[in-house]
Amino acid sequence: MDKDIFIKLLAQREFKAVRSILDVMNEVDIASLLSTLSDKELALAFRLIPKDKAAEVFSNMDTSMQTYLVTMFTEKELKELLDDLYMDDTVDMLEELPANLVKRILATVSASDRSMINQLLNYPEDSAGSIMTTEYVDLREEMTVGQAMAHIKKTGIHKETIYTCYITERRKLVGIVSAKDLMTTDDDVPIKDLMETEIISVYTHSDQEQVAQLFTKYDLLALPVIDQDGRMVGIVTFDDAMDVMVDEATEDITKMAAINPSEKTYFETSVLQHAKNRIPWLLILMFTSIITGTIITRYENAFAAIPLLVSFIPMLMDTGGNCGSQSATLIIRGIALDEIRFTDLFKVMFKEFRISLIVGAFLAVANGVRIFIQYHNPGLAVVIACSLMGTVIMAKLVGCILPLLAKKVNLDPAIMASPLITTLVDTFSILIYFNIATVLFRL
Amino acid sequence: MDKDIFIKLLAQREFKAVRSILDVMNEVDIASLLSTLSDKELALAFRLIPKDKAAEVFSNMDTSMQTYLVTMFTEKELKELLDDLYMDDTVDMLEELPANLVKRILATVSASDRSMINQLLNYPEDSAGSIMTTEYVDLREEMTVGQAMAHIKKTGIHKETIYTCYITERRKLVGIVSAKDLMTTDDDVPIKDLMETEIISVYTHSDQEQVAQLFTKYDLLALPVIDQDGRMVGIVTFDDAMDVMVDEATEDITKMAAINPSEKTYFETSVLQHAKNRIPWLLILMFTSIITGTIITRYENAFAAIPLLVSFIPMLMDTGGNCGSQSATLIIRGIALDEIRFTDLFKVMFKEFRISLIVGAFLAVANGVRIFIQYHNPGLAVVIACSLMGTVIMAKLVGCILPLLAKKVNLDPAIMASPLITTLVDTFSILIYFNIATVLFRL
Repeated sequence: MDKDIFIKLLAQREFKAVRSILDVMNEVDIASLLSTLSDKELALAFRLIPKDKAAEVFSNMDTSMQTYLVTMFTEKELKELLDDLYMDDTVDMLEELPANLVKRILATVSASDRSMINQLLNYPEDSAGSIMTTEYVDLREEMTVGQAMAHIKKTGIHKETIYTCYITERRKLVGIVSAKDLMTTDDDVPIKDLMETEIISVYTHSDQEQVAQLFTKYDLLALPVIDQDGRMVGIVTFDDAMDVMVDEATEDITKMAAINPSEKTYFETSVLQHAKNRIPWLLILMFTSIITGTIITRYENAFAAIPLLVSFIPMLMDTGGNCGSQSATLIIRGIALDEIRFTDLFKVMFKEFRISLIVGAFLAVANGVRIFIQYHNPGLAVVIACSLMGTVIMAKLVGCILPLLAKKVNLDPAIMASPLITTLVDTFSILIYFNIATVLFRL
Repeated sequence: MDKDIFIKLLAQREFKAVRSILDVMNEVDIASLLSTLSDKELALAFRLIPKDKAAEVFSNMDTSMQTYLVTMFTEKELKELLDDLYMDDTVDMLEELPANLVKRILATVSASDRSMINQLLNYPEDSAGSIMTTEYVDLREEMTVGQAMAHIKKTGIHKETIYTCYITERRKLVGIVSAKDLMTTDDDVPIKDLMETEIISVYTHSDQEQVAQLFTKYDLLALPVIDQDGRMVGIVTFDDAMDVMVDEATEDITKMAAINPSEKTYFETSVLQHAKNRIPWLLILMFTSIITGTIITRYENAFAAIPLLVSFIPMLMDTGGNCGSQSATLIIRGIALDEIRFTDLFKVMFKEFRISLIVGAFLAVANGVRIFIQYHNPGLAVVIACSLMGTVIMAKLVGCILPLLAKKVNLDPAIMASPLITTLVDTFSILIYFNIATVLFRL
């Protein structure tokens, strides 16, 4: 849809044409089109969206647009919108809105919805409870397929998903049945015979990353959420799980680059906030790398005697840092995908040790030959080759041990990534280098 | 399920007990349990899996187990398995199996399946065609909801998903209708009135990363795939899209750490292959960092006159590298999630410039004060503070420009990440540092 044409039609009050355009457009695209409008046009355009699409368009808008619209809505409009919004989208919105609007919204919804919303708002951030919805299809064991289908026809339209149905008994979950099974089974079969009783579920306080992992592992469409008393309280749907997966990957990538993660996109984050997210680790790493500098000064005599030694510092430090972050990155990603666990520590260390022998030998020979050709100095070639070998082995071991240790003591492995490891590896590589040089050159 | 009990029951030939255990277990878990068995036990256990679960268990196994089983199967067993496997899982398996087994399998399937499989095998790797399945629910505009439901009941059981149904006319896609709409609408409503005609689709040659982005953007369950002549040829389902998302994130993370990406997990990759994936970039980066070393030797006089200068090299280089990779990482992730485009270059540069002013000033003052206190040397404090400021600004600009340029010339932005940027930034920071020192100390 051409944005300019839409704005022109809206400005000329060609409501019929605007309405027919909105009628054929996808909800996500409407939200993105509306984000280019001014506030006044936004309120006008939103009221022209077909009623059955309005709630979904709204839940795809960013907070500033939602805030503006909620302020503009009449009581009746607000009530209509809240009736159509899924519970998890309502809660997502409330988490971001200013307090006065939250109050107005809570006053608008029914008492039972209000208590439900308050409970959902209370689940810890990043827990299954905080991303679940409370609207799901609830069936009884005694029903037949035909009765279940009739029940879904009556109530299903208001549920976020009807493709996995839950069979409960006194609020405990006893089985699940897929819409596919219902649709391909004869009407008179009892649900009891059709339902699966081995159920994958999570608790309200389960971490959302674990929830997302279950979705990928078992290819789920929805996952039931159980409270501490074993009662079913909601479901997480696959679209929210996909968002969690993307967000968690972004968070890990961000942390590996020594940045405090932000939930907003690059452009949504202000310059000041960007600076705030980046300064702490830079400061920590800056002061730790001073240690490396201090160690270098201890070998002042060495590089006073052979000034050429200094010129190899960047190469050794960079190679060590790169080797370390290679290992660390693979291990951190493996931990995030649940492919590597702490119990694998020695297996990983042995593997990294063998890898580092090959990698180290290759780099040592390549560089040794280069130095011999360039400087005709076999002693220097041997010193650099040995230092490279030692640095690579050390870097790969540090790189694989630290993330696994972090995991063991419940720290985030991603925090242990490249920059912190680089600083450690820098220090060790300088020590290895100057010690080898001192011994071999008898300095 | 306790693995040891299962193995014991199997060894004691307690087939009834084994069968009841397998009966209640999830397919993914069965595959993982079977992976711990010896080959002989595997063949035995696989034959005890309930028939309706066998194909899905099989598609969750790794290649070595699949290869072994296919070798062991009788013609009849193989045919039964292939009948139950979804087309995309069959193709995934064929891509990995040794040639003689592929031949045997192609000889077993029907002629029409064979030509379908051959076509699917021909789509480029990482294309929508290579991950799609050809089994979907195909409806006609003239049908009523009741007729559609009857059609699904008859044919749906063999389709990977029945939750999005496709209305085609002479093989062109004219509309889609969700199972939810079918289930919540009266039987006599014509499909024509219910179907959506604004359809999101991809081409067989579309990149799988773009496919995954559409799933997250529009919260899709399935996405139709169209060939060059506009005919519908298959669908991509959400489970494959989730796998692509995870794989693409892993690939980006791996590349950012200067490793050639591998499709296998950490433990699946051999030591030699790990070494091969890591050596190329290490070698390239090692030789580029020699440039930095060479530049340092050009300033031999400077650090001969003031040896303390050398000790600040690691700190400046590390800080520059960290700053650069912070910016690069955020930009690369933003590009991957389609939040940042090349046209944003100047917007990004201006933002990074303002961020670097704040970050640079902060680090410069912190370090300047420390040096003044530690060495009582205001000249040195000013040199280091100015160098830090210059390094941070330079590093942030390099870090944001390179990935966007890479994107523009169709290189992978992730390749431009931390290590390559670090080397560039290292060189520039040394130049900035020694030039400032030379000027201010009149060396």
